[in-house]
Amino acid sequence: MPFKPTDYLPYDFANRRHIGPSPKEMGEMLERLDVPSLEALIDETVPKSIRQEAPLNFGKPKSESELLHHMWQTASKNKVLTSLIGQGYHGTVTPPAIQRNIFENPAWYTAYTPYQPEISQGRLEALLNFQTMVSDLTGLEIANASLLDEATAAAEAMTMAQRVAKSKARAFFVDENCHPQNIAVMQTRAAPLDIEVIVGAPDDLEADKVFGAIFQYPGTHGALRDFTPEIEALHAQNAIGIVIADPLALTLLKEPGAMGADIAVGSTQRFGVPVGYGGPHAAYMATKDAYKRALPGRIVGVSIDSHGNRAYRLSLQTREQHIRREKATSNVCTAQALLAVMASMYAVFHGPEGLRAIAERIHRKTVRLAKGLEAAGFHVEPEAFFDTITVDVGLLQRGVLQSAVREGVNLRRVGETKIGITLDERTRPATIEAVWRAFGIIMDDADFTPDYRVPEALHRQSDYLAHPIFHMNRAETEMMRYMRRLADRDLALDRAMIPLGSCTMKLNSAAEMMPVSWREFALLHPFVPEDQALGYKEMIDDLSAKLCDITGYAAISMQPNSGAQGEYAGLLTISSYHRAQGQGHRKVCLIPVSAHGTNPASAHMVGWDVVVVKSAANGDIDVEDFRAKAEKHSDNLAGCMITYPSTHGVFEETVKEVCEITHSHGGQVYIDGANMNAMVGLSRPGDLGGDVSHLNLHKTFCIPHGGGGPGMGPIGVKPHLVPHLPGHPETGGEQGPVSAAPYGSPSLLPISWAYCLMMGGAGLTQATRVAILNANYIAKRLEGAYDVLYKGRNGRVAHECILDVRPFDESAGVTVDDIAKRLVDCGFHAPTMSWPVAGTLMVEPTESETKAELDRFCDAMLAIREEIRDIEEGRIDAQNNPLKNAPHTMEDLVREWDRPYSREQGCFPPGAFRVDKYWPPVNRVDNVYGDRHLICTCPPLEDYAEAAE
Amino acid sequence: MPFKPTDYLPYDFANRRHIGPSPKEMGEMLERLDVPSLEALIDETVPKSIRQEAPLNFGKPKSESELLHHMWQTASKNKVLTSLIGQGYHGTVTPPAIQRNIFENPAWYTAYTPYQPEISQGRLEALLNFQTMVSDLTGLEIANASLLDEATAAAEAMTMAQRVAKSKARAFFVDENCHPQNIAVMQTRAAPLDIEVIVGAPDDLEADKVFGAIFQYPGTHGALRDFTPEIEALHAQNAIGIVIADPLALTLLKEPGAMGADIAVGSTQRFGVPVGYGGPHAAYMATKDAYKRALPGRIVGVSIDSHGNRAYRLSLQTREQHIRREKATSNVCTAQALLAVMASMYAVFHGPEGLRAIAERIHRKTVRLAKGLEAAGFHVEPEAFFDTITVDVGLLQRGVLQSAVREGVNLRRVGETKIGITLDERTRPATIEAVWRAFGIIMDDADFTPDYRVPEALHRQSDYLAHPIFHMNRAETEMMRYMRRLADRDLALDRAMIPLGSCTMKLNSAAEMMPVSWREFALLHPFVPEDQALGYKEMIDDLSAKLCDITGYAAISMQPNSGAQGEYAGLLTISSYHRAQGQGHRKVCLIPVSAHGTNPASAHMVGWDVVVVKSAANGDIDVEDFRAKAEKHSDNLAGCMITYPSTHGVFEETVKEVCEITHSHGGQVYIDGANMNAMVGLSRPGDLGGDVSHLNLHKTFCIPHGGGGPGMGPIGVKPHLVPHLPGHPETGGEQGPVSAAPYGSPSLLPISWAYCLMMGGAGLTQATRVAILNANYIAKRLEGAYDVLYKGRNGRVAHECILDVRPFDESAGVTVDDIAKRLVDCGFHAPTMSWPVAGTLMVEPTESETKAELDRFCDAMLAIREEIRDIEEGRIDAQNNPLKNAPHTMEDLVREWDRPYSREQGCFPPGAFRVDKYWPPVNRVDNVYGDRHLICTCPPLEDYAEAAE
Repeated sequence: MPFKPTDYLPYDFANRRHIGPSPKEMGEMLERLDVPSLEALIDETVPKSIRQEAPLNFGKPKSESELLHHMWQTASKNKVLTSLIGQGYHGTVTPPAIQRNIFENPAWYTAYTPYQPEISQGRLEALLNFQTMVSDLTGLEIANASLLDEATAAAEAMTMAQRVAKSKARAFFVDENCHPQNIAVMQTRAAPLDIEVIVGAPDDLEADKVFGAIFQYPGTHGALRDFTPEIEALHAQNAIGIVIADPLALTLLKEPGAMGADIAVGSTQRFGVPVGYGGPHAAYMATKDAYKRALPGRIVGVSIDSHGNRAYRLSLQTREQHIRREKATSNVCTAQALLAVMASMYAVFHGPEGLRAIAERIHRKTVRLAKGLEAAGFHVEPEAFFDTITVDVGLLQRGVLQSAVREGVNLRRVGETKIGITLDERTRPATIEAVWRAFGIIMDDADFTPDYRVPEALHRQSDYLAHPIFHMNRAETEMMRYMRRLADRDLALDRAMIPLGSCTMKLNSAAEMMPVSWREFALLHPFVPEDQALGYKEMIDDLSAKLCDITGYAAISMQPNSGAQGEYAGLLTISSYHRAQGQGHRKVCLIPVSAHGTNPASAHMVGWDVVVVKSAANGDIDVEDFRAKAEKHSDNLAGCMITYPSTHGVFEETVKEVCEITHSHGGQVYIDGANMNAMVGLSRPGDLGGDVSHLNLHKTFCIPHGGGGPGMGPIGVKPHLVPHLPGHPETGGEQGPVSAAPYGSPSLLPISWAYCLMMGGAGLTQATRVAILNANYIAKRLEGAYDVLYKGRNGRVAHECILDVRPFDESAGVTVDDIAKRLVDCGFHAPTMSWPVAGTLMVEPTESETKAELDRFCDAMLAIREEIRDIEEGRIDAQNNPLKNAPHTMEDLVREWDRPYSREQGCFPPGAFRVDKYWPPVNRVDNVYGDRHLICTCPPLEDYAEAAE
Repeated sequence: MPFKPTDYLPYDFANRRHIGPSPKEMGEMLERLDVPSLEALIDETVPKSIRQEAPLNFGKPKSESELLHHMWQTASKNKVLTSLIGQGYHGTVTPPAIQRNIFENPAWYTAYTPYQPEISQGRLEALLNFQTMVSDLTGLEIANASLLDEATAAAEAMTMAQRVAKSKARAFFVDENCHPQNIAVMQTRAAPLDIEVIVGAPDDLEADKVFGAIFQYPGTHGALRDFTPEIEALHAQNAIGIVIADPLALTLLKEPGAMGADIAVGSTQRFGVPVGYGGPHAAYMATKDAYKRALPGRIVGVSIDSHGNRAYRLSLQTREQHIRREKATSNVCTAQALLAVMASMYAVFHGPEGLRAIAERIHRKTVRLAKGLEAAGFHVEPEAFFDTITVDVGLLQRGVLQSAVREGVNLRRVGETKIGITLDERTRPATIEAVWRAFGIIMDDADFTPDYRVPEALHRQSDYLAHPIFHMNRAETEMMRYMRRLADRDLALDRAMIPLGSCTMKLNSAAEMMPVSWREFALLHPFVPEDQALGYKEMIDDLSAKLCDITGYAAISMQPNSGAQGEYAGLLTISSYHRAQGQGHRKVCLIPVSAHGTNPASAHMVGWDVVVVKSAANGDIDVEDFRAKAEKHSDNLAGCMITYPSTHGVFEETVKEVCEITHSHGGQVYIDGANMNAMVGLSRPGDLGGDVSHLNLHKTFCIPHGGGGPGMGPIGVKPHLVPHLPGHPETGGEQGPVSAAPYGSPSLLPISWAYCLMMGGAGLTQATRVAILNANYIAKRLEGAYDVLYKGRNGRVAHECILDVRPFDESAGVTVDDIAKRLVDCGFHAPTMSWPVAGTLMVEPTESETKAELDRFCDAMLAIREEIRDIEEGRIDAQNNPLKNAPHTMEDLVREWDRPYSREQGCFPPGAFRVDKYWPPVNRVDNVYGDRHLICTCPPLEDYAEAAE
């Protein structure tokens, strides 16, 4: 018996760790589905006509330890110097307590976007802290829960200004002191919208010519300026004043609100979020109360639950693209929740006095640096500064930069003769001395007594962060427990399946996540010399090659830092291509009615007109309608945007036909990659006829959702589109950039790369197969209880399925909400609600869930169906029943129980764990109350007592 | 207002992060205590006569980021080569899911020993898995929940054998193939107990001459041997057979149980626990059912709770040293819980087939390695092996070793001409090729077809790890959720204060913990050449110097890896000193009646006779009794063991007198360092008259308790004792070793070092002051409700206080247990129960708790007092009341409620969080049931249904 060679590989990650069902479980599931093998199921599900020819082959998959070794070798090729380049990216100290308890804690990073507020109170509180922090620091009434990066936030501010300005001017003024990437991204955004961007010095602003203007504060070369006069002039012309402000500087400096600014944006990166070669970090946007309904992105607000207790939720959802669709003014769909949480915790950790002290230290160090340079005879600009100075060194620019690198420091090359230096929280006396040495000055930092170089008029006069949350006891014990309490309030992947259709909540494995914390990935400035980022280059090149193999495209751009950004970048690429062909007039885009709301919103952003294509009765694209509309708009057809497999969860057999029709009318095909988890290894969008697709690395490629971001949405394109991919002022390229950093949020890429390396081609393909198996297994088990709205020809679904619960509204008065909240009682996050079909639930289990967890979910759903039947058949009350009262909380258990069903029935429905029960911290949240009484900053406690009455 | 220089230091760790109360809170607390300042409180509390003269001065304290930078520089001085040295320490792959979710998760590492089973069910389950794993692999009926290291486990096995053997022989046979450190530690242990250790080849065993024998399997140089004949011979002479076995090898090889062994011990290090330059790792011990009551260490057992549901708990506590005191046969007091949990999760993660596959791979690689050497003409020994081979290279030994180092590999130097090589889970083909190159062989690993070199007779015939827990779905998703569920069942420092008297449950900060995971600390073999461990050396030297400053001693030995080991090592040091002075007959040790049970147990282990000294009425040592006994035993006085401040929580003013008396009679003074957290910076045991002390780095110096280990108990000694400190076969020294590794568990030392570096001398002293403040604040707030049993002259306590709850037994039938369990309802871990005085609670808040948390605790205690009063005054039933029914669980809430108080009263007493309530997973655990129906391995589910009936 012993010593038989075994084919078991302990680290065969693909088969044993990432994929949920065991081989034995898979056998049982296939039996239930009545198919002889997984391959047979795939044959029934994925049409032969769209299958890819060659299997994926990435060589031998790596075990976890091989992966970490390989990753460590790659990381070692990045050189970690001290970067004083500034330009919007700063060294910062991530408090270890925050790093360990949030950034590296699956309870935080595996959470989904807080659309289900009852199970999201922890991160909603953290995000409300973020909004309060932004609102306070900028001096503006309302802030959102973060945006993707500073540059895109500036672009969003520009388009928002256009929406709210009474001025009808078509031009927008951009301060030439903005960071180059901010200017470039605004220019990219403005072009298709026919906004004329005027870049110039604030002194040259002609307020009557513009609908708005944006200023950087401090300026990219360090200048401080009070923009009050400019903003007054703008207001006099009904135009909007925007300030891009460094939130750390605002702890010392007069705030945008005090200058009269209407909107403020910026990056909270330096609040404890590592630079990470460019991202991810949380940008912010704040505005006046008057403009709150025009604010893009998510806004956390305060409401009450059904017992009148305080409860947080996302507010003003009706502004969002997924509801406004082609009327949307922004395609912002995600945020940078995890990073916003970190930044907010950084503020809680330090409090106002701590933040101010950090800012003062940085300023004093900058003054010392400047005085040293001045003492040696250099001329330092500007006269007033916060943390950034510029020195003209004439012909010696190259020499000083190189000398600095030898000292372990990167400085900024400014023009042909100048050098920029930006200090930060990590700067030590030794760093200052190293910079001096690069300038040929041998001096001891201790010799200088610092003074201040901020003019009196720019000193901040107002308080900030007065709320008690920012005055918590500063002991780490207290902070750690606060973070734990918030985490425990939420239900994330580390406790239960999150069966969200189209969101692909799969395992984010520890081995994939660990390298993200490594200093070689975390501490690189995005604009370091290329030879300091060879590890990143190797990773990006190899991951791009693999993604090209997977998709059938010729090249990948890593720049888009969300799925919606990917769509936008893809459409820009197509637009550029059309213009290059002399077809710049092509602006009609066909989009099926079932498309995700970001599709039409993105089309709108590139100036296209959306023409909606109908669905056939079976949910597929109505090919005849598609053909008719393509013909009708043949001369102006820019392209189409389709999703594959469809948002209805079906592999449509007509996809190639749809692509051919589009091409035959001169259009380009955008295939939305949201559902790529159903395709990897089986089918390639490029082979189907796609010209460009984005990939949600945070869905298919294991980047965690972080409670609502970060995401990554790189795009792949066919060869003819390669020259039209986004460029960047720092790295070149003919096109403008769509994101602040050349590679978007590159510090996340180790996750997706690790996933590909550990799975190998066969493992990735197996994951796809099992994702399809899991979805079909659920559909099968729920058969008879719930109708699956759309199926393929053989009665199979793809990797997700839509459950039709609309009939229960009529039969029992039970809504999709009731079922979703009842699932919370069972210990589950609800599936996607009312999308793509109102009143339905879309379930996507992913390959990572085990059969046991799928069964727990199905048991819960079947039990809920029986509860509905009890209502239908009059056995339980139509209003006072477990569904309407869901979710049940501990409060319900403790209170007087006046319900016609037992506590046991209410709180422990099938599926719920007994000992390990998850309790939502609040009862059902009142959405209407929250929108009517909009509060988006941390309110004093007593407010809630009143509200509850 | 702005730009005023501020004295606030954002990273002034000492004052803002580690210490709980804010300056404002401290003001309020001092006011409550009616003292003008913290210094005044200290003056009232700590007698002037014992205060140290010079303040601690360690230079400027480091901020968290400075610390991490400094630590990284130090770590970089360790060179991480591939060590194939073996000798009990092996490369292993820690599964990232386990590293992240257990090793780096405060929910696991900040937990206390599971003495309160209701709040410890998660780690008790994990430890039961460990016991089951050990029991299965060794083929023996019962295993304990881990021991400190393999060598001390072997020594424990030896003394256990002496206890259980019917043979009255005084000699013990030790296989010469045992690892040298195992032999040496057994010799150290045997000497004072008058056990004659016979080291020899198994063939030379004379079974009639010994009470037991121990064999290493595989042997230190790789040999495999079936010890069945030797064990049969031993049994024939009523002697005991012990096998030290590598648990990974046991997945392939005939197990000790099948050879008839009575006891098996070994290390589970290679089950996913990094080598860490020697520790910590979990050793194991298993034995036959017949000997279970003689088994040292903790044993987790299965019992039921008050509803009859399954519940785990520590079994057979009456065997332990804290109860048996001077009758104790072992001073084992702690375990390596965190490491045992990791090893058990490693087994759950891989399952039997995975473990076997890992073992097979290692064996096949070793065979390939051997064949390559043989092909080149080398003679490889032994003929049969698992993972270790030895090659005689004659004069080339030094050259091959050096050549290997150049190849990045450490091999083992064996004798003067041989080289040992041990492969492990991390060995790759490239490693094998590197070893070959070191032997001058240029060859490709792929050329060899492996065969097996294990004789048929040694193939394992029995199954193991058959329990379902080891056959969980192997998906990481499932593992992650399992670890989270277990963690959530437990209450650790990350959720609430753990006010354990004498256990000093203080903050284990994230910055301190992070370096422990770094590869430069984690991956070093303990026997690497010195020049590869310069970082460790620097750290150990600097930390030792600081600890000398703190204690007033001349030198520190880091070797003892628990507090009790420290006591034992300290007494050995004294014994050695006496012998060197020709005073080897001095064997009487005076110990106060209030001493911790490990004190007399340790004295017993060095062959001393314990003479107990009475307490005076005020709880202090009765100095007259002490003097009388010292005089009586003057000729034979070895010394005394005292604790300072006393275990009664008081700074006794007579301490110097006690020391003088001891010295005047030729004795040496051992001052137990358990309460050092009340002294650091204020008073030094060396100045008081101590000759030797141990320091619990896991109490005073921030190493987390890990749910019951690891610990570190280094000892400090006066100059005259320095030559008598423990030595080690690998590093030299005149004395024998007490632990397997020269520096005990050195990978924990970054924690204590970081603490000292970040606090600085002033910060450490302030921590002491605040620890005293916090204890006095609690005593004050509870005044009138609970009597504090012992106080100092000014009515102050030291850093802890004993609350006398004995009167309530009579007045209301309320026991210390009832109060402890009721505190669980309030969301607290109970204080230390019934120690040092039966029927009391000892409370130690430490400096890390905030005033808010202290108040929450006091509110809870005061409310409990009122509940007791309600019983006393007949307002509530004496049996059916919240105290007797505590702790309340969710089950209670859901069930029919037939109690004379409300659910609200029962479940939400003052102190309990509302939304963030901690629910114990079981009701009160039945201790008697568990000991009567002893089950110490994972039982099948159906057993419990029966038990509950």
